[in-house]
Amino acid sequence: MLQLDSHPTGRHFLQIPGPSPVPDRILRALSLPTIDHRGPEFGALGRKVLAGIRQVFKTQHPVVIYPASGTGAWEAALSNTLSPGDHVLMFETGHFASLWQKMAARLGISTEFLVYGGTDADLPQAPGWRHGVQADLIEARLRKDTGKKIKAVCVVHNETSTGVTSDIASVRRAIDAAGHPALLMVDSISGLASADFRHDEWGVDVTISGSQKGLMLPPGISFNAISPRALDAMKSATLPRSFWAWDEIVEMNKDGYWPYTPNTNLLYGLSESLDMLLGEGLDNVFARHQRWGAGVRAAVNAWGLPIQCADPAVYSPVLTGVITPEGIDADAVRRLIHQRFDLSLGTGLGKLKGRMFRMGHLGDSNDLTLVAMVAGVEMGLKLSGVKLAGSGVQASMDYFAGHAAPAALQKAA
Amino acid sequence: MLQLDSHPTGRHFLQIPGPSPVPDRILRALSLPTIDHRGPEFGALGRKVLAGIRQVFKTQHPVVIYPASGTGAWEAALSNTLSPGDHVLMFETGHFASLWQKMAARLGISTEFLVYGGTDADLPQAPGWRHGVQADLIEARLRKDTGKKIKAVCVVHNETSTGVTSDIASVRRAIDAAGHPALLMVDSISGLASADFRHDEWGVDVTISGSQKGLMLPPGISFNAISPRALDAMKSATLPRSFWAWDEIVEMNKDGYWPYTPNTNLLYGLSESLDMLLGEGLDNVFARHQRWGAGVRAAVNAWGLPIQCADPAVYSPVLTGVITPEGIDADAVRRLIHQRFDLSLGTGLGKLKGRMFRMGHLGDSNDLTLVAMVAGVEMGLKLSGVKLAGSGVQASMDYFAGHAAPAALQKAA
Amino acid sequence: MLQLDSHPTGRHFLQIPGPSPVPDRILRALSLPTIDHRGPEFGALGRKVLAGIRQVFKTQHPVVIYPASGTGAWEAALSNTLSPGDHVLMFETGHFASLWQKMAARLGISTEFLVYGGTDADLPQAPGWRHGVQADLIEARLRKDTGKKIKAVCVVHNETSTGVTSDIASVRRAIDAAGHPALLMVDSISGLASADFRHDEWGVDVTISGSQKGLMLPPGISFNAISPRALDAMKSATLPRSFWAWDEIVEMNKDGYWPYTPNTNLLYGLSESLDMLLGEGLDNVFARHQRWGAGVRAAVNAWGLPIQCADPAVYSPVLTGVITPEGIDADAVRRLIHQRFDLSLGTGLGKLKGRMFRMGHLGDSNDLTLVAMVAGVEMGLKLSGVKLAGSGVQASMDYFAGHAAPAALQKAA
Amino acid sequence: MLQLDSHPTGRHFLQIPGPSPVPDRILRALSLPTIDHRGPEFGALGRKVLAGIRQVFKTQHPVVIYPASGTGAWEAALSNTLSPGDHVLMFETGHFASLWQKMAARLGISTEFLVYGGTDADLPQAPGWRHGVQADLIEARLRKDTGKKIKAVCVVHNETSTGVTSDIASVRRAIDAAGHPALLMVDSISGLASADFRHDEWGVDVTISGSQKGLMLPPGISFNAISPRALDAMKSATLPRSFWAWDEIVEMNKDGYWPYTPNTNLLYGLSESLDMLLGEGLDNVFARHQRWGAGVRAAVNAWGLPIQCADPAVYSPVLTGVITPEGIDADAVRRLIHQRFDLSLGTGLGKLKGRMFRMGHLGDSNDLTLVAMVAGVEMGLKLSGVKLAGSGVQASMDYFAGHAAPAALQKAA
Repeated sequence: MLQLDSHPTGRHFLQIPGPSPVPDRILRALSLPTIDHRGPEFGALGRKVLAGIRQVFKTQHPVVIYPASGTGAWEAALSNTLSPGDHVLMFETGHFASLWQKMAARLGISTEFLVYGGTDADLPQAPGWRHGVQADLIEARLRKDTGKKIKAVCVVHNETSTGVTSDIASVRRAIDAAGHPALLMVDSISGLASADFRHDEWGVDVTISGSQKGLMLPPGISFNAISPRALDAMKSATLPRSFWAWDEIVEMNKDGYWPYTPNTNLLYGLSESLDMLLGEGLDNVFARHQRWGAGVRAAVNAWGLPIQCADPAVYSPVLTGVITPEGIDADAVRRLIHQRFDLSLGTGLGKLKGRMFRMGHLGDSNDLTLVAMVAGVEMGLKLSGVKLAGSGVQASMDYFAGHAAPAALQKAA
Repeated sequence: MLQLDSHPTGRHFLQIPGPSPVPDRILRALSLPTIDHRGPEFGALGRKVLAGIRQVFKTQHPVVIYPASGTGAWEAALSNTLSPGDHVLMFETGHFASLWQKMAARLGISTEFLVYGGTDADLPQAPGWRHGVQADLIEARLRKDTGKKIKAVCVVHNETSTGVTSDIASVRRAIDAAGHPALLMVDSISGLASADFRHDEWGVDVTISGSQKGLMLPPGISFNAISPRALDAMKSATLPRSFWAWDEIVEMNKDGYWPYTPNTNLLYGLSESLDMLLGEGLDNVFARHQRWGAGVRAAVNAWGLPIQCADPAVYSPVLTGVITPEGIDADAVRRLIHQRFDLSLGTGLGKLKGRMFRMGHLGDSNDLTLVAMVAGVEMGLKLSGVKLAGSGVQASMDYFAGHAAPAALQKAA
Repeated sequence: MLQLDSHPTGRHFLQIPGPSPVPDRILRALSLPTIDHRGPEFGALGRKVLAGIRQVFKTQHPVVIYPASGTGAWEAALSNTLSPGDHVLMFETGHFASLWQKMAARLGISTEFLVYGGTDADLPQAPGWRHGVQADLIEARLRKDTGKKIKAVCVVHNETSTGVTSDIASVRRAIDAAGHPALLMVDSISGLASADFRHDEWGVDVTISGSQKGLMLPPGISFNAISPRALDAMKSATLPRSFWAWDEIVEMNKDGYWPYTPNTNLLYGLSESLDMLLGEGLDNVFARHQRWGAGVRAAVNAWGLPIQCADPAVYSPVLTGVITPEGIDADAVRRLIHQRFDLSLGTGLGKLKGRMFRMGHLGDSNDLTLVAMVAGVEMGLKLSGVKLAGSGVQASMDYFAGHAAPAALQKAA
Repeated sequence: MLQLDSHPTGRHFLQIPGPSPVPDRILRALSLPTIDHRGPEFGALGRKVLAGIRQVFKTQHPVVIYPASGTGAWEAALSNTLSPGDHVLMFETGHFASLWQKMAARLGISTEFLVYGGTDADLPQAPGWRHGVQADLIEARLRKDTGKKIKAVCVVHNETSTGVTSDIASVRRAIDAAGHPALLMVDSISGLASADFRHDEWGVDVTISGSQKGLMLPPGISFNAISPRALDAMKSATLPRSFWAWDEIVEMNKDGYWPYTPNTNLLYGLSESLDMLLGEGLDNVFARHQRWGAGVRAAVNAWGLPIQCADPAVYSPVLTGVITPEGIDADAVRRLIHQRFDLSLGTGLGKLKGRMFRMGHLGDSNDLTLVAMVAGVEMGLKLSGVKLAGSGVQASMDYFAGHAAPAALQKAA
């Protein structure tokens, strides 16, 4: 029999940018007995999580919860709003933007991929993967689309592969400035509930998200937040869809139920997650992640290693990508760290394979877990022969000691 | 804050035909910490559950595990094997067969629905919903299809809406007898791991199943068992697909991984479920459910109420549908039973709404939980004014006392 | 490796009169991470459970919580209030009263055992074990004790070995009527939080209780509720004591801490138990157990078997003892029921060994679990060759269907 | 309702020297359903844990498991072997040795307290609390006891208040060299299952231990390992005892049961703990703790702060006591660290109050949790104005990176 609890002594440090470390409160909630998804107790649960998740997306409009992992929610967004052959504008911010583009193409959509217009001298193999979207490029392209053939603009809010966020409000402004009717679809799978996000205020038509990042749940449920315009687009969209179809779900959700069997036990977890996040206050949650990101980046800067995100204005509060020196296989470093220190880091994805690793600072973490992560990485880099400019651990400690979390100050008072 | 543990004192009796009562062992397994889905520990887990689930389907070929609930696996079976406009032959055994047919139609497939050819005098509103598939009708229809336009035959193994099973081997024989190349696709969502099922031996091309029935897991993962012919059909099938696409999943599953984020914590549950089921032995599992079904039907017969399944040869070992007398609203009875006895029963679905309720006898149950269910139903029927011919509880007790489970005999020895 | 989850399919029916079935909510609470028993979070937990448990005992005075099982709390009551050679008056209501008497004797206390004065024709081997205490005998004995040598009167509130309760208020009245200064010490290990109990109002000096009965916790913590007179008696009592000594515990409890390491995880369970019991309301809890007892006794009466408690005025709401016909080994019946129906019943203890079994109706139960227990017992009796006068299951169902629980009525409204 | 999960975001760092951090595996085991302590499943559990715990104590003789916390096991050892007025020789190694001495005195035993004979210039208020027992002093004292009035020698194996171990084998040699019949009683509450311990080989008569240290369980069960000579002494010992009495327990343990209700759910935890410890191998467990202690002490040395244990030969592998500079209130530092970094450290006990804090390195820990603890302490010391000679974190990292755990090397191979 496989021993499921496979890690050696002590707790594993799961510092990948998702699945994030799941709080014990949520793990315990997952183990509640499964109930009848057509009974009155389920309706109360459904209504609660549907109301709560709208608060997290900051929307007054429907949020569909799928009993499926995040990749499915990408497909849902496309298949509910588009027809075969429709043309969409996407922006290559990294690996996940590329995967979404491939999915769209696979579903029979015509995709156009905008790329960052500047230069990235030090990572020539992945141009643009160190920056967020450029709204001006989007605006310019839409202005040219006088026939309004572009049906949607698709961007990623927080690129999990690079640690770069994008200014979503600026994309909406660009679309509006161009007077273009295209829908705005945003992947905030790894941004939601960690980085500030405002579905309604920013004029997003479909936001895609998942459970296993800022919501601190295991993977297995995913989301579409849907604007009235997107719901309207659904009526004429002809891509085949059934499981992902919004109409029946939105209708049945009014009472807290689903047309097919929902993912009951993960909804227990979502209920607990919402209690935690809304109890803390979303602004406090965002500030907490910003502070964590700063503390981790202090370490990377002290080491003298380049941060994947080249633009401090759009540093991700969720993860930090670190570029390893040429000749150092980032995955070999990761493996060594895993073996020696029971610490999991994110790999370099796609074009970044072997030259980058990613440090997650999200989920069930705190100052000491992040210092421990930094320490594990620092030991691993040294054991791998990387020369470091200085002590990252010291820099992180200086940052965290010097910038008390507001909650800790309050507690001390 | 919503109290998730919403039931009053004592344990709720979840006697719907799925989600089935989840064993505590599995609930605890769900609460294991989420791990890196790209790390070595995950690969070991993936390889274990992929090997084990093949044993449960009785197949040597790939079984795809989706991080999505069962309805998605229906869509997966269709979209991987068919092209827009393809013609498929289905058989209306009940509500779920109808839902699958609607889904196929919604996805742009041309569907043809065979109906039971006999008569059902006592439930005229739902002809055929008291019987299994008639292989002879299928064979006759296929023989007429000289142009081989029919791409697939789709049948339901265990109709969860009626408590009727179908003889899947006979369908394969019918297809072969007709010399027809159509694929055989089978929904065994509620049959797998409770009723005997043999993917390879019976010549099934795609078997669809889900987690929340015989596997005793919460809903949230689902399955496609795939024959080599089905994999071959995929190559020319042109329905758009990405999330459901078999190719990448089958490829990555070879090492125990998935192309996108799998449903880690439900896979922990699956691992535990496989340990339980394969440890007990599938034949013992099937015999256990057969015995349970007999004990519950003894009660229904004693009450003098008709069993929905009109053909004893295909009584479901998973659930028993009970037809209420005219003038008795079966859902009002169910509600009263829920309020008074904290017992959930299955509703009458589709054409059976209000005239039927369903008693589940699957999952984490035993003789006494089933006797308790029978007692709760009997009290509820009486309180609703239904005249009963005799004591169902007594009949169940006589059956269970008179037919010791082999395991109990062994224990006593 | 021993499989801890050792029961076969389905949930075990734990219908012994304690340990009672533990609600899942409490089991989950037990699995919270252990914390520093000297830290601020622990103090908050300690203060909460200490305040809550006083409500359950209905006392304004200290309740000491021991990190030890109930037998220890008996010893604590004695060793804190008595000196070697002290004389105490006890009343033989059953096996546990006898065990407590043996313990007192072993600790060097002089014990005097009053026995029921009536006759018990049908169970001559255990005279008095079918009745509660007789306050008049106590009063008479105390009146004779003109030298006030009797230091304490010790009685059992709910005799777990017989299913008989005793009228504690009447004992206090007897002591007062005799004008005697003896302390009143009461074992309510299996009565507390199931049967009405009022430490202050009834003038009890020390009440002993445990976790594994009405509080629905696993065994491992126990209680002494202490009157001011008992605290005063402590000052001159000279039995050696350290672990059990009240003084340091009461002092440190003021802030929510203990002088030595408390049983942290069981205190989590206690916290959850208090939320459940006080949330439901103690009067509702008591009424619930009274109704359960009536429903179970209806079955025993229908069978035509004698109930161990011969006096309906003092039927226990917690358990019912059933006397088997001569020639029927009650323990053989119990074993058969355990093997065949995965149902645990209480054995006949001490003088009742082999002639009696006990059916628990407490803890995490409801109408259907109790009907299931009755069904299991009925099948077991029949399989053992016992002739039954009628159907106990039918009688229980008639009772429960005919007497709706107030909560169910409220829910339905 | 008190939120039991009271810690802020992320996992609390419980780095007190017990209760130690409990592994999730054990927390989950605690939540198994409570069973009948008289049923066959319990007997299997009882026999397993009784056999396993003997392996941990390294004894062929009985180990009694009490459903009570560790302080009770001290009392049990005394009350089973001694009579009122008996004289015992104890050795003041620290606060817990003192507490045990006070308990003995309270129980009516005549105690004599040996004190370390050297000098401790830098902590004059606590002479001897920086060293282990001196067997030569014990031998000298016993030789003088020509009347053999000393009935027992009582020493502490691992002083939890100081982080000093004692050489138990040397004490046995001293007793034997003096030709004295005194029993050897050893408190290894915080040593067992972390530091090497050999009940039989070292000639110990009674070893006392508890659950919440090396066994990684919550508090609530405790142990007496008993030599044949101690069992023999019981027969003539006259201290009153009942709950703690060995005789009935040892007798009933032969079948895996207890005379009174055992602590079932903590025994589930013990079963899991034994699987973990014996699966890893005790020698590996001991080596793991030695390595952890070295890594933590490297930090303390780098800070330039004195370690409470003045003798490197007896450094505790379980905890390290750190003396704060004069004028620095160690408890204020601890509070600040708790508020700012959610890290619990042990306080200075008794004579060391305010001048010392204790860092635990036991239980469910690993390199990174210990580095995190060191980082938290270092930040807290600096924020409290303590001047540190160097970076403790760097020293710990250098140690851990430079000394790979054997298991990690094996994994990498």
